[in-house]
Amino acid sequence: MRAVVMHGARDVRVEDLPMPTIEEPTDAVIRLAAACVCGSDLWPYRGADETREPRPMGHEYVGVVEEVGSAVSNVKVGDFVVGSFIASDNTCELCRSGYQAACVQRVGMGGSQAEYLRVPLADGTLVATPGEPAPDLVPSLLAASDVLGTGWFAAAAAQAGPGRTVAVVGDGAVGLLGVLAAREMGAERIIVFSRHADRQALAKEFGATDVVTERGDEGAAAVKELTDGLGAHSVIEAVGTQEAMLQAIKATRPGGHVGFVGVSHGVEIPGRLLFGSHVHLHGGPAPVRQYLPELIDLIWNRRIDPGRVFDLEVPLEDAAEAYRAMDERRAIKALLRV
Amino acid sequence: MRAVVMHGARDVRVEDLPMPTIEEPTDAVIRLAAACVCGSDLWPYRGADETREPRPMGHEYVGVVEEVGSAVSNVKVGDFVVGSFIASDNTCELCRSGYQAACVQRVGMGGSQAEYLRVPLADGTLVATPGEPAPDLVPSLLAASDVLGTGWFAAAAAQAGPGRTVAVVGDGAVGLLGVLAAREMGAERIIVFSRHADRQALAKEFGATDVVTERGDEGAAAVKELTDGLGAHSVIEAVGTQEAMLQAIKATRPGGHVGFVGVSHGVEIPGRLLFGSHVHLHGGPAPVRQYLPELIDLIWNRRIDPGRVFDLEVPLEDAAEAYRAMDERRAIKALLRV
Repeated sequence: MRAVVMHGARDVRVEDLPMPTIEEPTDAVIRLAAACVCGSDLWPYRGADETREPRPMGHEYVGVVEEVGSAVSNVKVGDFVVGSFIASDNTCELCRSGYQAACVQRVGMGGSQAEYLRVPLADGTLVATPGEPAPDLVPSLLAASDVLGTGWFAAAAAQAGPGRTVAVVGDGAVGLLGVLAAREMGAERIIVFSRHADRQALAKEFGATDVVTERGDEGAAAVKELTDGLGAHSVIEAVGTQEAMLQAIKATRPGGHVGFVGVSHGVEIPGRLLFGSHVHLHGGPAPVRQYLPELIDLIWNRRIDPGRVFDLEVPLEDAAEAYRAMDERRAIKALLRV
Repeated sequence: MRAVVMHGARDVRVEDLPMPTIEEPTDAVIRLAAACVCGSDLWPYRGADETREPRPMGHEYVGVVEEVGSAVSNVKVGDFVVGSFIASDNTCELCRSGYQAACVQRVGMGGSQAEYLRVPLADGTLVATPGEPAPDLVPSLLAASDVLGTGWFAAAAAQAGPGRTVAVVGDGAVGLLGVLAAREMGAERIIVFSRHADRQALAKEFGATDVVTERGDEGAAAVKELTDGLGAHSVIEAVGTQEAMLQAIKATRPGGHVGFVGVSHGVEIPGRLLFGSHVHLHGGPAPVRQYLPELIDLIWNRRIDPGRVFDLEVPLEDAAEAYRAMDERRAIKALLRV
């Protein structure tokens, strides 16, 4: 089968890899309906994460179950399914507490930018849709697999809700879907940090009420100005850099909540700043599995359209162009037709 | 009047200072019933915080109202009152949200190791007891002013409660009263990190069920062993050093809560560690004012006896010995008879 493999910084190739097979009785193999490139794939693409050996890429996936192991009972061949970037048993104490991304049996996913994918712990990981989705719903279901689920977790961690002002650091797909999540959770006001007209427009479509173009301390100060000098109740950090984390903390009012989901790169949080800020800090890899049933339902019933973040679509064979477009910020998020 | 003044590291003197007076109509002046030395006073005592000029010490206080400004109406001359180390108006939006330590008008207190003290924002800051307290209640009411209120906030920030296992980093007065707070909040199991027999004993009296003597990564591993490999639900950090903060984060299960109240000294939280830990982090200077009515009630009705943390009592004139004893860990907390 054809699959995307990263060989090093800016070196993405589409190659022939062996068909995945059932290795454990708890596995499933799915035929992908579509694949995509994640903002976090840009860390190794840009060399910020080292690529020591060729690595099959991709951790977001939707598709049709092709084969299941003997112990799989929650999904069956032919089901259209959505999974998350971390496979989880969904039965351990941590899963039951809502932290499937920290499941005691967790397996990090990889290799979903391909025609087929092996999914471990299929019973706990995969959620079937009510039927075969209309083609225009596929991008949204694919978004649920990571960027929507991650934005949703960020908004929940930031305690977005009625009467609250939410600020969002990061105008990539996760940040933009954090805006959508905050709106769905009933936030009163949603401030997005963005300097790009196309992303500002999509943020507004998703529910943003204010745009701030300043960054860092100036960005935080701008949010305070918009909130009686106090700061936002809820701030989503969806970048992962030191500047973004400090901006998020400083834009939050005492007693407010920062939900951070940007994969941390070089972040060191000064204890004294955090001590003096009185903010709540929570985040990490999103337990997307927790939200999948709800998100699938919202998408299926066309209440939300998170697939709008895909503004570039190319065949799997042209994956290198998808990476380039996202790296150069010509695209928010690229879908790969499989 | 006599008052304790720090001139530099390990140089604490008792001197004559001018009697405090009403400076603002919102002020009160109180005659202290007792004073005490805080663990955080040891930072400048040990030279970890610089003392650039002689500084009147002390920020914990109980006493009798001697005089009030023209705008004060909630307390009157003769009332026995308890206040907190941060004066607050208790009416601004942040106070009303429970973050009086971040009050928009907040004033950090100082100079309470003395015979008299000026308290700004008296209406918002001082809480009167139901009457003149029995002498044996005075140490407990004094504890409410900071160490109990701070331990209480830490336990609340760590979401101590029924069914939860709480671990406490730091066996000083705040950590010990964090144990007491966790017990009052209904925690099922309370693990205290301590290597000192006297502190272990008091921790058990306050409700600790387990003692761990290891520190750092070994201490965190010991907590995981006690909790099915998962870590505690709630961890209180009551030290303020890098080792203590990392120990607290690593001892917490994914989805669990760290409440940190140790005044941060040289702490830098690695973003990647926090990202991967899935813990909630919240803390800072405790909004003691929020808890004072409840704490006074518990003390008044002899439900709790936080004054047990005072294991040394000396006249105000001997303040230097009180500092020495706490510095050398011969005393958990020293009370100064005024």
